[in-house]
Amino acid sequence: MTDRKALIDKLKQGNAPALARAITLLEEGELDIPSVDQYIGATGKAVRIGVTGPPGAGKSSLIDWLIKHIRNSGEMAGVLATDPSSPFTGGAILGDRIRMQHHFLDDKVFIRSLGSRGAQGGISRITRDAAHLMQAAGYRFIILETVGVGQTELDIMNIADTVLVVLVPESGDFIQAMKAGLMEIADIFVVNKSDREGSKQLVNALKLLAETSQPGHDAWEIPIMLTNGLDGSGTSELFQTIQKHIEFMESHKETALFLRKRLHGLKQLIVEQLSVRINSAVNAEVPEHYKKELSDPSISLYSIFNRIMHDRDFTAQILK
Amino acid sequence: MTDRKALIDKLKQGNAPALARAITLLEEGELDIPSVDQYIGATGKAVRIGVTGPPGAGKSSLIDWLIKHIRNSGEMAGVLATDPSSPFTGGAILGDRIRMQHHFLDDKVFIRSLGSRGAQGGISRITRDAAHLMQAAGYRFIILETVGVGQTELDIMNIADTVLVVLVPESGDFIQAMKAGLMEIADIFVVNKSDREGSKQLVNALKLLAETSQPGHDAWEIPIMLTNGLDGSGTSELFQTIQKHIEFMESHKETALFLRKRLHGLKQLIVEQLSVRINSAVNAEVPEHYKKELSDPSISLYSIFNRIMHDRDFTAQILK
Repeated sequence: MTDRKALIDKLKQGNAPALARAITLLEEGELDIPSVDQYIGATGKAVRIGVTGPPGAGKSSLIDWLIKHIRNSGEMAGVLATDPSSPFTGGAILGDRIRMQHHFLDDKVFIRSLGSRGAQGGISRITRDAAHLMQAAGYRFIILETVGVGQTELDIMNIADTVLVVLVPESGDFIQAMKAGLMEIADIFVVNKSDREGSKQLVNALKLLAETSQPGHDAWEIPIMLTNGLDGSGTSELFQTIQKHIEFMESHKETALFLRKRLHGLKQLIVEQLSVRINSAVNAEVPEHYKKELSDPSISLYSIFNRIMHDRDFTAQILK
Repeated sequence: MTDRKALIDKLKQGNAPALARAITLLEEGELDIPSVDQYIGATGKAVRIGVTGPPGAGKSSLIDWLIKHIRNSGEMAGVLATDPSSPFTGGAILGDRIRMQHHFLDDKVFIRSLGSRGAQGGISRITRDAAHLMQAAGYRFIILETVGVGQTELDIMNIADTVLVVLVPESGDFIQAMKAGLMEIADIFVVNKSDREGSKQLVNALKLLAETSQPGHDAWEIPIMLTNGLDGSGTSELFQTIQKHIEFMESHKETALFLRKRLHGLKQLIVEQLSVRINSAVNAEVPEHYKKELSDPSISLYSIFNRIMHDRDFTAQILK
């Protein structure tokens, strides 16, 4: 464990290669945050900005502008981009990388695309844990980018403190499909490419959506920001609005929304950690003790499950 | 609970509306199989045939033919089609439905597309539990159709006793992307639209793939079947090969592959069920007892987790 401690120490000094190495270990399932939590200790503050929306909404050029504003404010910026779950569409990430490559010369900007190779719990766990490491490394703003709208993307957006849903006039289908989910995660709507035809209608539709249902957002009214990723217009105002949302959340730390986000994260963490233990407990106990039941297809898994839950040898391994 | 028992009783008599109603309850998170396992009891045998492959490989016309062969053998046939996780591509399911609509007049054929609305554990859990209900209702062959290659699709294929991977000459990218995953789940390769150019190269590529790596398939050699969904050629042989694979599995019930499949299912079941309990335990215990920690963003979720795992009030609720 001493090499883990040395790695964490280096990372906490803001060493980017150490951070990169630690994230790789996360991806490979070789690093588990709760087990090194004592080395990490207090991390200082960080803001996780979730950026989601359909492909083609211009998320990456918007992120490009956000990085500039973050750097101008004197803070370090991190980006975690998640590969879409489909292996067919890996190309988009490459595009993002090229667009963002002028930041590569800035050592206060850390950009990383994530995959979930060997690790348990999948990409949302890795994103959360990588963001925690970046926070420990001194990044004050951490941007989490996802594409699309599956459960994984919603899980990642639930990690974020502030979620931007980026839309363009062509995003009608996306909004239709995501109505409830969008409203649950969105803190700020961004209408990008706002010079295009149809922007006004989109703004009106979003206003209606924001007015009719605001589950759990307390007194925060979802603002609708107009931006243009090409010339950066509106992005400075967007950055200010993000900061306003952060202040709002900080002054509402005991409200339902804040606690809900934290509770959600805690549940995910417990399920993940217990899943790992269940996995090893099943491997260690079940094949030998339940071989007869397992090899008889007429005995359903449901009844084996009911029996196992009363097996003290088994349950003790889960709640050790 | 008496209405649940009545529903299960009806379903066990092969009543299709009762089966449909029970599956809807599953989707809505209102029915939990372990808790009604006593009413279901012994189910009789059933074979789960997994059918996966890229969009456009002709899976649904192939399934159409398989239904015919199953019905000709005198057995009842069920199909569970899972909506792709992306809401953009819902249209394909409609296409499947139209193509299969001539089976709707046959009351020994039950076709259902599944979504994972309110239920915990997602679509693979619902598919598994719906298949169990169909088994209880007397369906001897249950076809599980998935599109694409995400983790969810692999989870669903892990439920199947026999997995067909359906490919066409154009599926090169799919095979490239899925090499390891494909080999792990495939029991039978199907080269569909086999009259097209490039079929021979595809067969050769698959042969090579099947020869170089067969993890855990014991003595089963993955056959490569040629079919044509338009005129049904090769589909009768495919159905025979499926039956051969089932016989093989039945005569190898104590081998690594069989046990691995069952163990995998058991792990999923335990994780799911404990997730539900974790969810209620967190909701019941944490907001009140850990409010201070939760509302202080400088205390990481990881350290709250470490504390909760030593909280007897909490852990007792998970392993009750």
